[in-house]
Amino acid sequence: MAEWCLLIIDNKSYLINLDLKIVEIKGFGNFPTNFLKEQEIGVEFELFDKKSKLLPYNLTDIQANLWRGPQIISPKDIAWLVYSSNLKSGDIVVEAGGGSGALTTALGQTIFPDGKVITFEKNSKHVEIIKKNLNMSPYSELIELRSEELNDDTKPIVCNSIILDLPEPQKIINWAVKSLELGGKILCYVPTINQVEKLLVSLDKWSQIEISESIHRTWQSRLSAIRPDTNLIGHTGFIVSARLLNK
Amino acid sequence: MAEWCLLIIDNKSYLINLDLKIVEIKGFGNFPTNFLKEQEIGVEFELFDKKSKLLPYNLTDIQANLWRGPQIISPKDIAWLVYSSNLKSGDIVVEAGGGSGALTTALGQTIFPDGKVITFEKNSKHVEIIKKNLNMSPYSELIELRSEELNDDTKPIVCNSIILDLPEPQKIINWAVKSLELGGKILCYVPTINQVEKLLVSLDKWSQIEISESIHRTWQSRLSAIRPDTNLIGHTGFIVSARLLNK
Amino acid sequence: MAEWCLLIIDNKSYLINLDLKIVEIKGFGNFPTNFLKEQEIGVEFELFDKKSKLLPYNLTDIQANLWRGPQIISPKDIAWLVYSSNLKSGDIVVEAGGGSGALTTALGQTIFPDGKVITFEKNSKHVEIIKKNLNMSPYSELIELRSEELNDDTKPIVCNSIILDLPEPQKIINWAVKSLELGGKILCYVPTINQVEKLLVSLDKWSQIEISESIHRTWQSRLSAIRPDTNLIGHTGFIVSARLLNK
Amino acid sequence: MAEWCLLIIDNKSYLINLDLKIVEIKGFGNFPTNFLKEQEIGVEFELFDKKSKLLPYNLTDIQANLWRGPQIISPKDIAWLVYSSNLKSGDIVVEAGGGSGALTTALGQTIFPDGKVITFEKNSKHVEIIKKNLNMSPYSELIELRSEELNDDTKPIVCNSIILDLPEPQKIINWAVKSLELGGKILCYVPTINQVEKLLVSLDKWSQIEISESIHRTWQSRLSAIRPDTNLIGHTGFIVSARLLNK
Repeated sequence: MAEWCLLIIDNKSYLINLDLKIVEIKGFGNFPTNFLKEQEIGVEFELFDKKSKLLPYNLTDIQANLWRGPQIISPKDIAWLVYSSNLKSGDIVVEAGGGSGALTTALGQTIFPDGKVITFEKNSKHVEIIKKNLNMSPYSELIELRSEELNDDTKPIVCNSIILDLPEPQKIINWAVKSLELGGKILCYVPTINQVEKLLVSLDKWSQIEISESIHRTWQSRLSAIRPDTNLIGHTGFIVSARLLNK
Repeated sequence: MAEWCLLIIDNKSYLINLDLKIVEIKGFGNFPTNFLKEQEIGVEFELFDKKSKLLPYNLTDIQANLWRGPQIISPKDIAWLVYSSNLKSGDIVVEAGGGSGALTTALGQTIFPDGKVITFEKNSKHVEIIKKNLNMSPYSELIELRSEELNDDTKPIVCNSIILDLPEPQKIINWAVKSLELGGKILCYVPTINQVEKLLVSLDKWSQIEISESIHRTWQSRLSAIRPDTNLIGHTGFIVSARLLNK
Repeated sequence: MAEWCLLIIDNKSYLINLDLKIVEIKGFGNFPTNFLKEQEIGVEFELFDKKSKLLPYNLTDIQANLWRGPQIISPKDIAWLVYSSNLKSGDIVVEAGGGSGALTTALGQTIFPDGKVITFEKNSKHVEIIKKNLNMSPYSELIELRSEELNDDTKPIVCNSIILDLPEPQKIINWAVKSLELGGKILCYVPTINQVEKLLVSLDKWSQIEISESIHRTWQSRLSAIRPDTNLIGHTGFIVSARLLNK
Repeated sequence: MAEWCLLIIDNKSYLINLDLKIVEIKGFGNFPTNFLKEQEIGVEFELFDKKSKLLPYNLTDIQANLWRGPQIISPKDIAWLVYSSNLKSGDIVVEAGGGSGALTTALGQTIFPDGKVITFEKNSKHVEIIKKNLNMSPYSELIELRSEELNDDTKPIVCNSIILDLPEPQKIINWAVKSLELGGKILCYVPTINQVEKLLVSLDKWSQIEISESIHRTWQSRLSAIRPDTNLIGHTGFIVSARLLNK
């Protein structure tokens, strides 16, 4: 397993792999890791004439350093999906499609250390990106990545929650009823209202149906000019969730 | 430990305590639990002439049934606080003040099954409400509730994250530097911009300072009249977070 | 025509009709107007032992004092409807339905002093409310109030803009093509996405189609506690507009 | 005065000046106006092998074609400033600074045909841009453009409303009290909360103080994929308004 670490140079942070002989540090170029391996976590040293140190990394660092392929689910939506899924350590969750693995990694952390994330991704290019991204997280062993489409013929998987980032999630609803534990939730992430409508039709036997969208507004933190940031992501997707209270 | 359960009557859900002899079911009145204890989880029976069943409960059920005392941190803010805290199973988190225990419960689930939440709450009435609320969750043993004020004289607590819902969080920043592990985050939840300003001044040596606010917009799910809900919580609080990269 | 005036008592304002012998002043009870008629505009006098004065009133005062019947179009939406209609002094605008007359009054001010507002309202109770509300504005003579339904059989009216607050605005589109001047705009105010969809289908020959919604966020102005207001109107309606470039 | 016209080619619109011998049409290159001058308003002809026609233009066309210099006040904010200013045909309004003239033009239309807009702009480069922009509107004769700073020494101007887009509007408040008619409003457009705070201090004797911000959310209008647009302007400025009820 790769030994990743957060390298701080002048208060900026870089996620790097100490298993490699040479790492690329954005803005500084390539650098041999030998020197870094000798440093103690949290103790300052000099690098490129700047104050530097190694620190443990966390989920935010991983997310910020993901290899980009298909559109990544934004942090605001990951936060709400994870929270409202009710998942916790030890749980089993099914996810489809895997995309770039951003949500996958967050789910891995949520069910850590002994739950399971089963991720379906039919696009082989995306599968490669997910693999690369999982390799830089401590959660890769908790994730079962299936290079196939999740569809109605897929063998049911007993699970606590199902999270779908698919163009036609309504096609998975029957499968979800067979797989999901009573009391569990399905969450679907869809960009258009047309998709929401089709999905609603298929959820007529489900309970606690909720449609929501999150707007996460960031502010400029300069003391003399406190103001909301100019650029705001106006829309990513609607999150439709429902709970299974009857089979 | 109380044996709580989710009772479903006609697709509506009620969180009830099976340890009691008689429970009050909103809209139906008091009811002896003997009959309920004989039912199997997930198997339908009749109650008040309606289809009913018992199900496992989850965090959402707990949050929806909390005893209300001081203002509860809203789900949208809990979701973001938990996500951006980077907390996971096994971690240690300090929270002050505890309020009604809504965030406390969510943190308990996050660090479950072997982490620790240390919650400071100086108001004895709030402490009683938190206790009542923790009693209806499986996380109460993971939470150390301290009926005291967190202040600069409090003995440092080694922890992975600190979450403050206090009027003057800037007074805790020195203590936070002593307590927080390198790489960890402090998150402060404050309603006014004036508080944000005072807090920013005290964070000058911290990194990755972020100010944000979440707007969670819910939609009506009636198929023939899909529209955003009329009522929206326009503001709860700003979340200011910062990361400790130097001591 | 009624002689309305803005009465200021202790910095609070009350729109009153000096033509009446006795007026009711909220919080102070009934009061004869004789004394008020003797006062000069802008010159302070004492009323109920408080500093008082008479001032000219404006559109905001009228809007704040409207008799309430059917749902009133909110100021944020009136502002956008008026602005994006491109209407100006001397123009002719058709409005249906009239509702409570809030938008009617604003349109009257926009085309003042020599344009025309033609307002259709089929509900006779609403017509009475609109009349009462127009009576307290200087624009009533510019408004032609028709107690009838606007429909495809209505004789075309040459106009610069058409504004529809109707459940099925798509039924008026043919009529609008016959009535609207080339280059003019139609604006429809509808609460649900279902209505937006039906409307879009009917607008396929129109240009510059725009769908938007306005969120107007008000802030608390107390210097020591500057923050957005807690309550926010999350949704009133979508505004769909289109421009007629071909007949 | 320039004779501007809206040229429609294939449902796209271009604001052009028929007084010039040759006009540049975006995407089509230069074109002599002789041919265009022979066309009748609203009657179709062929241009570049496409269906074309000339139409009367409106405020939206002008705004969309403004010469860009300093940051332009966005349509959502112009809409609210104009509406809540309570201005109408025949009124007098003072504006400072003029910026690029976007608000100036909208104010011109509001007080048309016999009111007055007095616009202060101290930056000579901006003055040139405003002049160019006013030249393509029918309102230029209603606007008095002063190439000077509005400050406390400026001779008072009796007016119905004052609109300030200045970094330090609090410096103009004394002047505003001398100039504004009783019952009139001042509106200030400021980007940061720090400016809002300073302004609030200076408004302590004013009434009906309001702070607000507008979020205008546009939607994609493709029938098969109805959804909010991805990009949203998250913040432009706060609008602080106050009414003068005492001198």
